[in-house]
Amino acid sequence: MLLNEELRTKGELAKEAAFKLGTLSTALKDQALLVMASALEKQEKEILRANEKDVAEAQARGMGKALLDRLSLTSARIKEMAEGLRAIAALPDPVGQVESMWKGAQDIQIGRMRVPLGVIGIIYEARPNVTADAAGLCLKAGNAVILRGGTDALNSNKAITEVIASAAESVGLPRGSVQLVEDTSRETATQLMKMNQYLDVLIPRGGAGLIRAVVQNATVPVIETGIGNCHVYVDSAANLQIAEAIIINAKTQRPGVCNAAETLLVHEKVAREFLPAVSAKLLTLGVELRGDSLTRELVPDVKAASAEDYQVEFLDLILAIKVVSSSQEAMEHIRRYGTKHSEAIITENYSTARLFLQNVDAAAVYVNASTRFTDGFQFGFGAEIGISTQKLHARGPMGLKELTTVKHIIYGQGQVRE
Amino acid sequence: MLLNEELRTKGELAKEAAFKLGTLSTALKDQALLVMASALEKQEKEILRANEKDVAEAQARGMGKALLDRLSLTSARIKEMAEGLRAIAALPDPVGQVESMWKGAQDIQIGRMRVPLGVIGIIYEARPNVTADAAGLCLKAGNAVILRGGTDALNSNKAITEVIASAAESVGLPRGSVQLVEDTSRETATQLMKMNQYLDVLIPRGGAGLIRAVVQNATVPVIETGIGNCHVYVDSAANLQIAEAIIINAKTQRPGVCNAAETLLVHEKVAREFLPAVSAKLLTLGVELRGDSLTRELVPDVKAASAEDYQVEFLDLILAIKVVSSSQEAMEHIRRYGTKHSEAIITENYSTARLFLQNVDAAAVYVNASTRFTDGFQFGFGAEIGISTQKLHARGPMGLKELTTVKHIIYGQGQVRE
Repeated sequence: MLLNEELRTKGELAKEAAFKLGTLSTALKDQALLVMASALEKQEKEILRANEKDVAEAQARGMGKALLDRLSLTSARIKEMAEGLRAIAALPDPVGQVESMWKGAQDIQIGRMRVPLGVIGIIYEARPNVTADAAGLCLKAGNAVILRGGTDALNSNKAITEVIASAAESVGLPRGSVQLVEDTSRETATQLMKMNQYLDVLIPRGGAGLIRAVVQNATVPVIETGIGNCHVYVDSAANLQIAEAIIINAKTQRPGVCNAAETLLVHEKVAREFLPAVSAKLLTLGVELRGDSLTRELVPDVKAASAEDYQVEFLDLILAIKVVSSSQEAMEHIRRYGTKHSEAIITENYSTARLFLQNVDAAAVYVNASTRFTDGFQFGFGAEIGISTQKLHARGPMGLKELTTVKHIIYGQGQVRE
Repeated sequence: MLLNEELRTKGELAKEAAFKLGTLSTALKDQALLVMASALEKQEKEILRANEKDVAEAQARGMGKALLDRLSLTSARIKEMAEGLRAIAALPDPVGQVESMWKGAQDIQIGRMRVPLGVIGIIYEARPNVTADAAGLCLKAGNAVILRGGTDALNSNKAITEVIASAAESVGLPRGSVQLVEDTSRETATQLMKMNQYLDVLIPRGGAGLIRAVVQNATVPVIETGIGNCHVYVDSAANLQIAEAIIINAKTQRPGVCNAAETLLVHEKVAREFLPAVSAKLLTLGVELRGDSLTRELVPDVKAASAEDYQVEFLDLILAIKVVSSSQEAMEHIRRYGTKHSEAIITENYSTARLFLQNVDAAAVYVNASTRFTDGFQFGFGAEIGISTQKLHARGPMGLKELTTVKHIIYGQGQVRE
């Protein structure tokens, strides 16, 4: 693969930086994160000025309101980015941890030591705050990072990267630890996805289209994140009060995120008792309901669901509903339409709960709790780089540990293989 | 990606089979492995007949002796395959193990449960024994497997697959648990590498060329295995007796495997004492030596090493030698030429040993032991599907555990996110 000048230069620099970062003390990395946080606050004006330019250009191009909101920085948002970096500094450093140590053949002593992945590529879209968050997490885990944000946020991303990269260098982090790809053309993105000689892993952060494009084009190993078509299944043996609280929480507490519920499955035995009451509440909360014919018989205000409604991630105040005749049918529906993110059953039946936990294939499978808990902080991992919905390397919330790998260290005293 | 009929049919079958395999009891899986082993022994004649055909055709095409040997089956080799399956049956089943369980936000109880990966694709070359080994490991870990062996071994692979697949079905494993791609064209291989809708992971087993082709073409996540340009570094503070035993073992005990040493690095302070003696022994053992000018001054029988000699994996009785002026230079050499497989230092110096363990980036880093220990059995993992030299998911010997992933199971009592 021929790489353009920018990628080659940044790739080389990142590889050198990663080699040095892997050996730095926790104290120095934490100091760098704190200095980066202060620098963001101190240089707020430059960042906001760059962001205004992006926002003005996006407005001129006719960008929609929701996207404009994602793109826009404020003093409060910059403060949040800084606080995010401070929170990362406060997390334990996974690098150098030896998870276990055992005796192998002939008493060689073998340990599994956590080490950085090396150079991480992050491809993301309109949110400029990802620049600081992703850089902070990668650095704390001892990795160099090459960021490739969207064209819309280029000025903001450049300003943020400049501020944090020079802050990091000022305390002794190697040059090239944090870099931004400034050529945001599609050709350069494609080259980035294939630069196996420099990148150890590529993490796309964004919508389904972006993730699909990265999976299709990358030769660098990819960790897929974040597509969540999550279900809540209310079993015939459900505590209906719990069921109501959970579906309301899973749908409405923050509808735009990947662990929000998109479909409600209800066992036919409790549908008559459950659906009219919960639908009334959901409608009051502004949720649009789209159901199958059984649901619509019970609740006239529900619109007809198309096949597609069970497939898409609404990321909005819309809920698909389906009445099923058994937990088996619910699990089949989840198997067919789910994206292996987060799935919940509400039941008081021991065997049904156990079957659901065992048979449903997803990063997180819940009994009697909201899917909204699939999150690094809620799980106790701290800040996360994303929610992995694939099966290799990391599954579910990816915190600092998931940004490392292991190496085996072996202590011998002259052993040779027989 | 448009898939041909064979891949689509086998993909669908495998996906269904994987769903069922994931829920089978350990006892049933073990029974299947034992029945598969007996079937291989009972149907030895059919397998040998198919193999004779492959060997005759390969001979007619002028296949070299080493490759012919890899391709050829004997009664003893079939017995070994059967014993391999019995050994896998005796290993503990990773599926269903809950590695840890903790409290998350609001006391939700979160566990990490080992579950199968799903459908595993294996792409391999001339050795027909891989068919049984890989199938056994994948099945025990609850995965369906789609095998794609080389054209040379097609008849043998078909015979082996038929025997083990019907044996597995006869005790109740789902149809489609073990399948072979019979169209061994390059186009079909390329399609296989891109069938993300059916395959969860692809593991190439073979030489550098095969692995490169898979990495370049696959959109399915790949685990790279087996390329080992391994080094033994004899430090100025080495115990030279230990050093001699280890380099002889690492080079000659089995030169054709990936954890054999390919380059010897010697500190200049001990080169004069160490190199002449060890070279004499290595030459007696039939090892061809290729060294830099300093080595050749000390040992006239050493040929001149080219730059390429430090890069290639000889997989043969050839050893590259280089005299270095510091442990730093040795580590730099390893960083430049190593393939992150297995690297060893021989030293009695505490600080140098510690620095080497920390700074050398490889799946296995040794102090005073032979690189030949990088192996599933030697590490205590049991049979392995390969040695991962990449950083995602698995690093080093990949046993049954590495053929699984995790899911988070969460027990709640009605918790919703605040």
